[in-house]
Amino acid sequence: MTEAASRPTLEAVAARAGVSRATVSRVVNGGDGVREPLAERVRRAVEELGYVPNQAARSLVTRRHDAVAVVIAEPEARVFADPFFALQLRGISKELTAHDNQLVLLLTEGRADHARVARYLAGGHVDGALVFSLHLDDPLPGLIRDAGVPTVFGGRPGWGEDTRAADPGVVYVDCDNRGGARAAVRHLLGLGRRRVAHLTGALDQTSAVDRLDGYRDAMAEAPGASDPRLVVESDFTPSGGERAMRELLERCPDVDAVFAANDLTALGALRVLRESGRRVPEDVAVIGFDDMLPVTEQADPPLTTVRQDIEGMGRLMARLLLRGLAGGRDRERAAAGAAGAPAAGTILPTTLIRRASA
Amino acid sequence: MTEAASRPTLEAVAARAGVSRATVSRVVNGGDGVREPLAERVRRAVEELGYVPNQAARSLVTRRHDAVAVVIAEPEARVFADPFFALQLRGISKELTAHDNQLVLLLTEGRADHARVARYLAGGHVDGALVFSLHLDDPLPGLIRDAGVPTVFGGRPGWGEDTRAADPGVVYVDCDNRGGARAAVRHLLGLGRRRVAHLTGALDQTSAVDRLDGYRDAMAEAPGASDPRLVVESDFTPSGGERAMRELLERCPDVDAVFAANDLTALGALRVLRESGRRVPEDVAVIGFDDMLPVTEQADPPLTTVRQDIEGMGRLMARLLLRGLAGGRDRERAAAGAAGAPAAGTILPTTLIRRASA
Repeated sequence: MTEAASRPTLEAVAARAGVSRATVSRVVNGGDGVREPLAERVRRAVEELGYVPNQAARSLVTRRHDAVAVVIAEPEARVFADPFFALQLRGISKELTAHDNQLVLLLTEGRADHARVARYLAGGHVDGALVFSLHLDDPLPGLIRDAGVPTVFGGRPGWGEDTRAADPGVVYVDCDNRGGARAAVRHLLGLGRRRVAHLTGALDQTSAVDRLDGYRDAMAEAPGASDPRLVVESDFTPSGGERAMRELLERCPDVDAVFAANDLTALGALRVLRESGRRVPEDVAVIGFDDMLPVTEQADPPLTTVRQDIEGMGRLMARLLLRGLAGGRDRERAAAGAAGAPAAGTILPTTLIRRASA
Repeated sequence: MTEAASRPTLEAVAARAGVSRATVSRVVNGGDGVREPLAERVRRAVEELGYVPNQAARSLVTRRHDAVAVVIAEPEARVFADPFFALQLRGISKELTAHDNQLVLLLTEGRADHARVARYLAGGHVDGALVFSLHLDDPLPGLIRDAGVPTVFGGRPGWGEDTRAADPGVVYVDCDNRGGARAAVRHLLGLGRRRVAHLTGALDQTSAVDRLDGYRDAMAEAPGASDPRLVVESDFTPSGGERAMRELLERCPDVDAVFAANDLTALGALRVLRESGRRVPEDVAVIGFDDMLPVTEQADPPLTTVRQDIEGMGRLMARLLLRGLAGGRDRERAAAGAAGAPAAGTILPTTLIRRASA
């Protein structure tokens, strides 16, 4: 970049003032650890050279920071407890690093902090954002749109078909939650199971809603199989899976198969089934979702599950955003264009992985 | 802040132009999704009101972002695999959120990315930084000093006594690694063990060096106990612990006690001891370091270890930084002052927790 090269550097200021780089940096950043005559010399050199001291100022001109924010709309503790996020971040980190972009992970304690996150995003500290694990009625997507920050969402955003249609700039990457769930439940029915239950995910997330829809699709294909008591609400966590499985056993002691909304929920269910003296898969077959390795392989018994490429999803989100940023003046729309369609959802396929549990 | 309140807002621009906030935001951020006459009206309103569009500009005036960077000098994959970092981040996140500061976690793939991290820190995107897991000869501390960003380090920085003495502005929080190690090894010797080994941490980190020194202190107190073959280098990971334990058993099959540099290393050692048919603690007593719950309680047998308050350490680092930022014009020195001493290391105590393994 010729423009950047011709702009005076910190080194040039240091040379002109006859001081070290560190001294220039201290003066420029408002420190008073530098003796006054020296500080004055630095200030004069800054003026003479027209040095722009920090990147905040520089970014007003270039509007690029080579930094991308990642926002996971979950409390910090959850982000570190659920390996799903670590895998997604792995994909994002690899892709951003390959393009020398800084990954800026914005952590929060909870939803009350989302306004502050939006303020940071709007504050000109990043070129774009990758946002995932959105919950219904979270104000974050609206705040982000207001901030005008180019964004790619992980998972179909939950603000309803109407609004999405009205905002063709929305780009998201998701897996085929509904199709994957349908395949899992068809497999259980194909094994001859007739009392097939579903432990749902957190139903304020579209992934949970879509998996529930897939379960219902498949159950509707088997005459007489559907029974609302077979659906128990849970929350994508192992302890939630335990609670839901206990409730299910009380409601329907004759259950002979369980499709859990994710692998962590399935692990909780396996524990409760073992406690209750039921054998898996002989008495109750169990299927999870995600294929979170090595957890699924090490489960007892090894867990049949619906695999999605979590790391690949993170990588693709980052790629779409960077392509969009590189591509156009209207960055938001450029990102949309990069996904190949105007109201752009990229849906990644899922695969049923058969192990011992079903 | 009166100054901030009197500055024109996005809302004021929207009202003056007769458009929505979202439209103003789009125009101001360079989007061309807005029809030209409308965009022109917005630009006129921006000019008339003297609206400063983004926080990058605002920060040139206020120099505050209410955001603090956290840098863990480890690859992203390691950050998410080692629960130590999750615990430290928990403490930091709670403290920053309580003061409505945004936690900005800067992730990398490796040391090659540290120059980019330093660039981001210098770029005026955060008010200060918390930096931990530094390794010897990492250029990061030097780059951070050049950037003039107020910083609190987690763990004693490893750039040597001389340099530290020359830079009294350095603030760090650490636990009593040497004292904790000494207590662990004294305990093993007190049990009557005479072949007490040490599996070290990564020796390019001061925490590992200090724990090794503590081991040597205690061994020197027991006549004839010291034997260099009893010290095997490892790296703070479970797989590293396994490798080191295998090597130790080859070198010294008569070993009767192991002090591992952290709990993860101890877990690896327990696995290899079990494989080799040795009973813990009857044949070989084992002690770890950190007290990483619930891992230490669930280990087989439950692990005796040296507890440090990891979450509390994170919280204290954040508190010292925020206090320093609030306290003074020379922010770097103010942070030092907040720690209560000029070359300020705050050393937190450790406690030996006795469980079944020693």
